[in-house]
Amino acid sequence: MSKPIYDRVALIGLGLIASSMFWAMKRAGLAGEVTGYARSQATRDTAREIGLCDRVCDSAAEAAQGADLVVLCVPVGAMGPVMKEIAPMLKPGATVSDVGSVKRHVIDAVQPHIPDGVHFVPAHPLAGTEHSGPEAGFAELYDNRWCLLVPVEGSDPAAVAALRALWEGMGANVEEMDADHHDLVLSVTSHTPHLIAYTMVGVADDLRRVTDSEVIKYSAAGFRDFTRIAASDPTMWRDVFLTNKDATLEILGRFTEELFALQRAIRTGDGDMLHDYFTRTRAIRRGIIEAGQDTDAPDFGRGHGK
Amino acid sequence: MSKPIYDRVALIGLGLIASSMFWAMKRAGLAGEVTGYARSQATRDTAREIGLCDRVCDSAAEAAQGADLVVLCVPVGAMGPVMKEIAPMLKPGATVSDVGSVKRHVIDAVQPHIPDGVHFVPAHPLAGTEHSGPEAGFAELYDNRWCLLVPVEGSDPAAVAALRALWEGMGANVEEMDADHHDLVLSVTSHTPHLIAYTMVGVADDLRRVTDSEVIKYSAAGFRDFTRIAASDPTMWRDVFLTNKDATLEILGRFTEELFALQRAIRTGDGDMLHDYFTRTRAIRRGIIEAGQDTDAPDFGRGHGK
Repeated sequence: MSKPIYDRVALIGLGLIASSMFWAMKRAGLAGEVTGYARSQATRDTAREIGLCDRVCDSAAEAAQGADLVVLCVPVGAMGPVMKEIAPMLKPGATVSDVGSVKRHVIDAVQPHIPDGVHFVPAHPLAGTEHSGPEAGFAELYDNRWCLLVPVEGSDPAAVAALRALWEGMGANVEEMDADHHDLVLSVTSHTPHLIAYTMVGVADDLRRVTDSEVIKYSAAGFRDFTRIAASDPTMWRDVFLTNKDATLEILGRFTEELFALQRAIRTGDGDMLHDYFTRTRAIRRGIIEAGQDTDAPDFGRGHGK
Repeated sequence: MSKPIYDRVALIGLGLIASSMFWAMKRAGLAGEVTGYARSQATRDTAREIGLCDRVCDSAAEAAQGADLVVLCVPVGAMGPVMKEIAPMLKPGATVSDVGSVKRHVIDAVQPHIPDGVHFVPAHPLAGTEHSGPEAGFAELYDNRWCLLVPVEGSDPAAVAALRALWEGMGANVEEMDADHHDLVLSVTSHTPHLIAYTMVGVADDLRRVTDSEVIKYSAAGFRDFTRIAASDPTMWRDVFLTNKDATLEILGRFTEELFALQRAIRTGDGDMLHDYFTRTRAIRRGIIEAGQDTDAPDFGRGHGK
């Protein structure tokens, strides 16, 4: 057991990310007491039942009161209002962080409400699954995944170092990045792929000449990987696209341009262009496997014959 | 052990699909002798080393000679020429089948070369992984996956029934489908998703402002699922797109239309539209899991922390 890094941690929002943080902090003894709050009564009831958080509070302000670290784990669009609500309760010297998938917007929405003497260190753990809610979390979610810290102008180095130690203690590799670059990188590695997956699943659902039951039965040929991504939390993703609009539109523009080039090669029968393109993309996959960010087991090692 | 369904089976082409067929046939004792042929000497050498096929032959004609069932397991664009080459060696009453991902084109290319007295029963097993080659195969690949039989005008019912029994014996669920409908359904569940995945990975690789190393490191946020699909065999996929052009272009057209609608919602800030869309697509995922075509384990049950 490590020595706790924070005596009191407050998790505001109790979905997949917060619940995994709780189990990961407990696994390594990183926090003394962990309080939690969720807006919905049902989520708070579930949290109490399954022992998620040492104390589940009935308001965000109550959960945040006296905490050394407050982590905002709510959808990106809710960060500003929640911060405003808890601001008066924060103890001097406390650190506020978040886990939002978009950083520029969160900084703009949260920072104006940070009281003097409170540190703000935005963060984004690059981990998740298609499941959401308080029961979806597990202690291993962050093991060997990246957590990006996005310190703002004047972030206190000691506060940044403590948060880094927390994430490393939860199993993550930590790196620092500028907010705008973060939003562009994530648009490529996460936001645009999600939008495209949602789109493809929407097309399949919508097509009159192919039934949903056919789509479902014959999904193993590639489509089912898209449906996993497109099963992620709708509120979270709505907020991501609305708040990372510029980078998303930029990458979507590049995507469409490229798709049209491939479409043209199909129409004109340019097999060499297609073959070259499909060969080039294999290298990226090899890089991901070598970097330990995915398994080389066929089909991600999904069980066969189940 | 079942009684063999065919005394002699010839596999022409020895990649992932054929090698999995071999192991699956052996597992259940479905074939007496299995011969095999691959165009490349290296593949034939590997096959001999790992015991893939009872007899590896140095020509397609030699492998096909005397076989009760010949399965063409070559890229779709090579089916016609290979069929022409083996036609003179086929024994009367033999069945020719294939495993191509496109059916109309294969039928048009192969059927003219089928000798009188030989049966032709096209087929398509909806199974695969991102790995290719003779060493990629495993006996369980077809367990609980679908195999679509696409009988042609005048396919002999007994020949169709025997092939169905073979695929069922290899673990698959079998259904019959018309060639054109097959090509449209597969365009939705397989071909277009692959093209889109290839495109997204190409965009990421190409973007100057985000390095490949960033894309690789931070891929766990969604992108890595795309790279798995985009690591599939380039020759196979080139042929799929060139030979299922009409259906691919139709579905791509629908996809682009839908993507533009979502893009517009992002640009105009229409959160309700996005939220509704993202909620609707979750239902398809549930259907796939209930149908036993994917696992509900988070991240497909990929190992965490490896």
